[in-house]
Amino acid sequence: MPEFRKDPITRRWVIFSTERSKRPSDFGKVTVIKEETNCPFCEGNEAMTPAEIFAIRNGTEPDGPGWKVRLIPDKFSIFEKNEELTKKAHGIYDKMSATGVHELIIETPNHMGSIHNLSYEEIETFLKVTKMRFNDLKNDYRIQYILFVKNYGSEAGAKFSHSHSHSHILGLPVIPKRVKEEIDGAKDFYDFRERCIFCDIIFEELSDDIRVIMNNEEFVALSAYAGRFPYETHIYPKKHIASFENTPDYMMKELSVILKDTIKSLYDTLGNPAYNVVLHTSPVNQVMPVLYHWHIEIMPRINKVAGFEWGSGFYINSVLPEDATEAMKEQLKKNTGEIL
Amino acid sequence: MPEFRKDPITRRWVIFSTERSKRPSDFGKVTVIKEETNCPFCEGNEAMTPAEIFAIRNGTEPDGPGWKVRLIPDKFSIFEKNEELTKKAHGIYDKMSATGVHELIIETPNHMGSIHNLSYEEIETFLKVTKMRFNDLKNDYRIQYILFVKNYGSEAGAKFSHSHSHSHILGLPVIPKRVKEEIDGAKDFYDFRERCIFCDIIFEELSDDIRVIMNNEEFVALSAYAGRFPYETHIYPKKHIASFENTPDYMMKELSVILKDTIKSLYDTLGNPAYNVVLHTSPVNQVMPVLYHWHIEIMPRINKVAGFEWGSGFYINSVLPEDATEAMKEQLKKNTGEIL
Repeated sequence: MPEFRKDPITRRWVIFSTERSKRPSDFGKVTVIKEETNCPFCEGNEAMTPAEIFAIRNGTEPDGPGWKVRLIPDKFSIFEKNEELTKKAHGIYDKMSATGVHELIIETPNHMGSIHNLSYEEIETFLKVTKMRFNDLKNDYRIQYILFVKNYGSEAGAKFSHSHSHSHILGLPVIPKRVKEEIDGAKDFYDFRERCIFCDIIFEELSDDIRVIMNNEEFVALSAYAGRFPYETHIYPKKHIASFENTPDYMMKELSVILKDTIKSLYDTLGNPAYNVVLHTSPVNQVMPVLYHWHIEIMPRINKVAGFEWGSGFYINSVLPEDATEAMKEQLKKNTGEIL
Repeated sequence: MPEFRKDPITRRWVIFSTERSKRPSDFGKVTVIKEETNCPFCEGNEAMTPAEIFAIRNGTEPDGPGWKVRLIPDKFSIFEKNEELTKKAHGIYDKMSATGVHELIIETPNHMGSIHNLSYEEIETFLKVTKMRFNDLKNDYRIQYILFVKNYGSEAGAKFSHSHSHSHILGLPVIPKRVKEEIDGAKDFYDFRERCIFCDIIFEELSDDIRVIMNNEEFVALSAYAGRFPYETHIYPKKHIASFENTPDYMMKELSVILKDTIKSLYDTLGNPAYNVVLHTSPVNQVMPVLYHWHIEIMPRINKVAGFEWGSGFYINSVLPEDATEAMKEQLKKNTGEIL
């Protein structure tokens, strides 16, 4: 029987219609990473990118080979880093200069590396570089929000010319609407109950244990109760932490484990799907830290979004999160060699 | 120089970055409608669909040939028409039965017909049938919102098996989030100024005349100031009318003209792109009619939406609406045989 489910934070309704459901293997849009000559992100081709902002190196020279993670400005950034932030009326409308920052983290020198096949240590390193950069960027008064996004596969919007694994860091002069919606929802809940809504959700999900995919000392991976997409997966720190950049370094190891294992499980369960990873963190210096709880949203992109979704802002999802959880847990057991 | 623009109604920021811009012809994802045997929507194949709810016929029998527009239930509806609406708590979450209606309007018996090549009269007829159905459905107390959507081309989510021109009418037990956002924005404006924000926008756009694509006695087609997609086009009635179904019949002729001419201009300018048409109208019996102003949003689907957009809820658009307006006006002049 189809049902509507409401996301308690953004108040978005999602329709779950499993009668249209498919087995995981039926989705099958396989993402292919091709070997490339002249990939600007490969070791040895550093001269093809703008000068690096930072890199993890063992004593090698900047902008040459011998690095593990490399942070560079996006050559095609749409933002003007050195521009003053100007806000203007435009008749009845409002506009603003595109002041901001767009940077790329190249997660590995190896062209064929990706989250599902990098080592935990490599992932931990790139997460720590990301955290460091968040802490740098938040000192810029023009930046209201730092957005971390990873697009894997062309269905997820990654460009063919950039199949080498990388992520985007965007420093924005506005709070993105989706995050604003989460904050508004969390604030209403806080005003009413004086508790973090995300903490309540995590507590209830851990007790119910029907949408918990994986769970370690510090983090939990959940199938979202009202996820927009089949196999939409959220990773939360179990402790209340509003901002990603305030997460202690010792937690990054467990984050790398849950991130890799979850994505590897999606990779195997859905047959290498395209996906987006988006980090939702508290805006810079604007929101009471009791309200918000940072998390990662992983959205496999295995079906097209039609006019219905665009026009209405609610979604049809053909896989119940409880079923997705079971499929992913089985895969995780296989991957860790446990007996089913 | 890139800039941020804010939609005054939904408060969504959109980044315009014309340095990444393309000429209209560079987008070029051509939609191909193929001839099909056994298309269930073609004249003569009426037995392949559920029994019709209504049709415009010249005395012919229901569910046989001899019709102009046909209204049928969607065979694959995810909604349960005859179910009571039940709302339940689900731990910390909320859920609801998928009570509602999903119907299809087959706009023409001709498989190769589509908005851009149907006659004005054919379009007027199907618009009147749509209006009639809205007026029927609003009597069902379980329905809070009636959504009209048309998907053209597979990039817009239309199924290959349904390339025969048709539209969807959905009767929903909730107000879609996008419309809710518009209502919230319009309500705040009304509380402040006691005017309809849409009326203000239409007035200013008509005076400025830099985003007006086309304009007749009753309707205006605009390139949206902060449109999410290149060539996003909105059609508004010039008079304040909250709900589509309250639009007088005499206005439907002019609506058919502006709808066809606008879509034909998109068809020619962008080379037969996929697109979504979504009707935004006031919820049924819930919102003060002074607040809201029905309109049609046409969204060409010529570029992929990446993680950036999903994760943040704002969009990068590579074509300024002022440029889109000029290109479309030129095309309109060509189409009507005027001298440039």
